[in-house]
Amino acid sequence: MDESLDRLTRIVDFCKEIDKEKFIERKTYLTDGVRFENDAEHAWHMAIMALLLSDKSNVPVDTLKVVSILLVHDLVEVYAGDTFAYDEEGKKTQRQRELAAADKLFAILPEDLGKKMRGLWDEFEAWETPEAKFAHSLDNFQPLMLQSATNGKSWSECGRKYSEVLRRNEKSALGSKELRDYAHENLVKQEIEKGHLIDDITKA
Amino acid sequence: MDESLDRLTRIVDFCKEIDKEKFIERKTYLTDGVRFENDAEHAWHMAIMALLLSDKSNVPVDTLKVVSILLVHDLVEVYAGDTFAYDEEGKKTQRQRELAAADKLFAILPEDLGKKMRGLWDEFEAWETPEAKFAHSLDNFQPLMLQSATNGKSWSECGRKYSEVLRRNEKSALGSKELRDYAHENLVKQEIEKGHLIDDITKA
Repeated sequence: MDESLDRLTRIVDFCKEIDKEKFIERKTYLTDGVRFENDAEHAWHMAIMALLLSDKSNVPVDTLKVVSILLVHDLVEVYAGDTFAYDEEGKKTQRQRELAAADKLFAILPEDLGKKMRGLWDEFEAWETPEAKFAHSLDNFQPLMLQSATNGKSWSECGRKYSEVLRRNEKSALGSKELRDYAHENLVKQEIEKGHLIDDITKA
Repeated sequence: MDESLDRLTRIVDFCKEIDKEKFIERKTYLTDGVRFENDAEHAWHMAIMALLLSDKSNVPVDTLKVVSILLVHDLVEVYAGDTFAYDEEGKKTQRQRELAAADKLFAILPEDLGKKMRGLWDEFEAWETPEAKFAHSLDNFQPLMLQSATNGKSWSECGRKYSEVLRRNEKSALGSKELRDYAHENLVKQEIEKGHLIDDITKA
């Protein structure tokens, strides 16, 4: 097989493999309040949100970089599975499982592209660049938006506490203070008022 | 409500509304061969493919533009529904239905962002710029990749003919001759050989 054909075949093999992301289920209901979102849908949704909201970042960001990070940020879950944000046991082994998954997955690609994709994921995980911080802000904001659209359904179902939501989103403002504040004032507080989120802070 | 809050609320309303794209079912099986893909998953998949394959465009393209077009290219289907590529009756009213949907959907956004999103969709539909042509090439390539991964399952099920597939993909080479040729040689022909696609051309 000639080099360019081999290269293209490896890219196509990778693209077939990541189809599995469409089967990785999250714990957030879609706006119909019936079906859980999957990782691919979640990434698509946030990538569009990045196109619309990138000027809400605390500092200017490269929109293509933000979108690219969001598109690939959950890819390792095709092997490592989704680790629920409130699953304290799962989180203990999450990093190790995801590193092994990244090694396996990105090796399917030609080396230069594997490094590029791995670099985007590493950048997201490191939470250091403006683009990674803003991507995390959207990764926090998007499920709060779906919670609000479904009257906090999954919060109600599992007796979620306000303090847990605040802890889950404690680094949101590093990327966008504006989005963090909007979410708190317009998406979270109303669910407390409606009794879908347990207020263990102001009433403590 | 102050202006910036109103603006952000309209963007969030739009982002909630487009969640409906996750319920728009296509006619292509995912790699499990069981479930059909939805529009959001399809757009996510192609956006990543654009990151990996944009150098396969016949002419240089702005990758952010290609990715943006792909992310939004099916949004109008949240109101207009998916029109199957081989549904000749549905295609007669497709343009009219999608224009009405675009008017309704993009009006949710602040005017400047509505124009930006509408512009991306119009650009895709016009099939004129290098980015639109390459986006169409990927929009043709991705389902062929899934067909190949599922042994041409949906082709077998409905007795699809080779001539129909060629007609469906006749403009693919306008964006990427390399991807069109690869798909033909490595994804389509093998399904003819395996009897999953009816050869009504070479055996006519």
